[in-house]
Amino acid sequence: MRRDTDRTHREIREESGSDRIEGRNAVIEAFRSGRTVERLYIQSGPREGAMNTVLREADKHGTTVRYLPKDKLDKMSETGRHQGVIAVLSAYHYAELEDVMDRARQKGEDPFLLLLDGIEDPHNLGAIIRTANLVGAHGVIIPENRAVGITATVVKASAGAVHYTPVVKVTNMVRTIEQLKKEGLWFVCADMDGTAMTQLNMRGPIGLVIGAEGNGVSRLVRENCDMVASIPQKGEIDSLNASVAAGVLAYEILRQRTQ
Amino acid sequence: MRRDTDRTHREIREESGSDRIEGRNAVIEAFRSGRTVERLYIQSGPREGAMNTVLREADKHGTTVRYLPKDKLDKMSETGRHQGVIAVLSAYHYAELEDVMDRARQKGEDPFLLLLDGIEDPHNLGAIIRTANLVGAHGVIIPENRAVGITATVVKASAGAVHYTPVVKVTNMVRTIEQLKKEGLWFVCADMDGTAMTQLNMRGPIGLVIGAEGNGVSRLVRENCDMVASIPQKGEIDSLNASVAAGVLAYEILRQRTQ
Repeated sequence: MRRDTDRTHREIREESGSDRIEGRNAVIEAFRSGRTVERLYIQSGPREGAMNTVLREADKHGTTVRYLPKDKLDKMSETGRHQGVIAVLSAYHYAELEDVMDRARQKGEDPFLLLLDGIEDPHNLGAIIRTANLVGAHGVIIPENRAVGITATVVKASAGAVHYTPVVKVTNMVRTIEQLKKEGLWFVCADMDGTAMTQLNMRGPIGLVIGAEGNGVSRLVRENCDMVASIPQKGEIDSLNASVAAGVLAYEILRQRTQ
Repeated sequence: MRRDTDRTHREIREESGSDRIEGRNAVIEAFRSGRTVERLYIQSGPREGAMNTVLREADKHGTTVRYLPKDKLDKMSETGRHQGVIAVLSAYHYAELEDVMDRARQKGEDPFLLLLDGIEDPHNLGAIIRTANLVGAHGVIIPENRAVGITATVVKASAGAVHYTPVVKVTNMVRTIEQLKKEGLWFVCADMDGTAMTQLNMRGPIGLVIGAEGNGVSRLVRENCDMVASIPQKGEIDSLNASVAAGVLAYEILRQRTQ
């Protein structure tokens, strides 16, 4: 039984240790400097100018927005000058691509990365990082825009895996793939019309690309992949949940790597 | 960007086609007669006697509860006598165990069932039914208590799979397993200390048992399984997300069945 009205209060309490930013311009600046805004609290009622910019940034970054009456924001505010917006920032520190490659090198293993091309659901992102940890992948790569970052929900859904498996945020997924190809990685993406996954050779240094919920892998990213793998389908519907598809493919790769 | 304050109103609009029940005794009766209550709207503020019974039933059945002020409930009410509680019932029609077995027989296939021993998260249940459809399983079996039923969230998360893959609700999972064993099924459950899944013979008529998030498969159910399968783990954390684990195991079974 969930009591949804209790939620906001509990979350506000839990987040009291996190970084907060208050005021419209400060929040816009935080978005633009690349900080991960986990959640925005916005004063309900009419809004103008700068607040629309805040909301556009939130939309672009997939940030959850919660509307609260003015007195609630007043109570949350530490500066007393929230101007109708309080942002809770992620305390998560993203890794660099080089850290991930070092990790594979130190273990003496062929690099095995998961690249997520626009996962928007924090439960899916958390579940995929959890899977990445358990298949022994060396890191997870996510894009900066149009995708969820490491929020509190993701940390929880990952069952702690974010503390072990490094997550890298990149501005351009295609450029990252090109860069990693120079380091010897092969890329496989998942799509219905690909070759059956068990028929592909997915051994060696590999990057597994998982598409967004609904849209799948974007055209440019797909064109840059060396292989397209399909998961067998015996049913009536279109596709698996994104985190389940990632799990099935990642375990097929692990099976081939350890054979 | 989600606007959480908008949600209740949208949901109420969407649900206007569903069955509704109003009033404390009618709602308690609906729970006890085995109807699936998708969601309860309860008047915020102090409550006594019969309302606590309503909440106990909601807790037992994993029903989502939303608290609303009296004027909102008054507006939603069709009878004008809601007594502080309005229940939205599921329009979903569960299948019978016999329907599922017939389905396998008609297809000339060995039965392949997924049994969920207490999945509580509607997104996980939806994702698992989606997987069941795509691996060609003939049905999904869920318990009546301490588990989520087919709610609107489950239907959405299943991506339509609930319309193709029958779901059966049973009162006693152990008794169902015993009954299906008489029809020739073997049962495999997932657990960390089991035999590596690729080492087990999971061909033939089979029931795959997936445990609850957090607790895993319950002791009695596990004791009634013929095999315990483990998914390889190379990471630091404990276990996969329940719907990912179900996907990895179901695809290993499909791989063995089609080899």
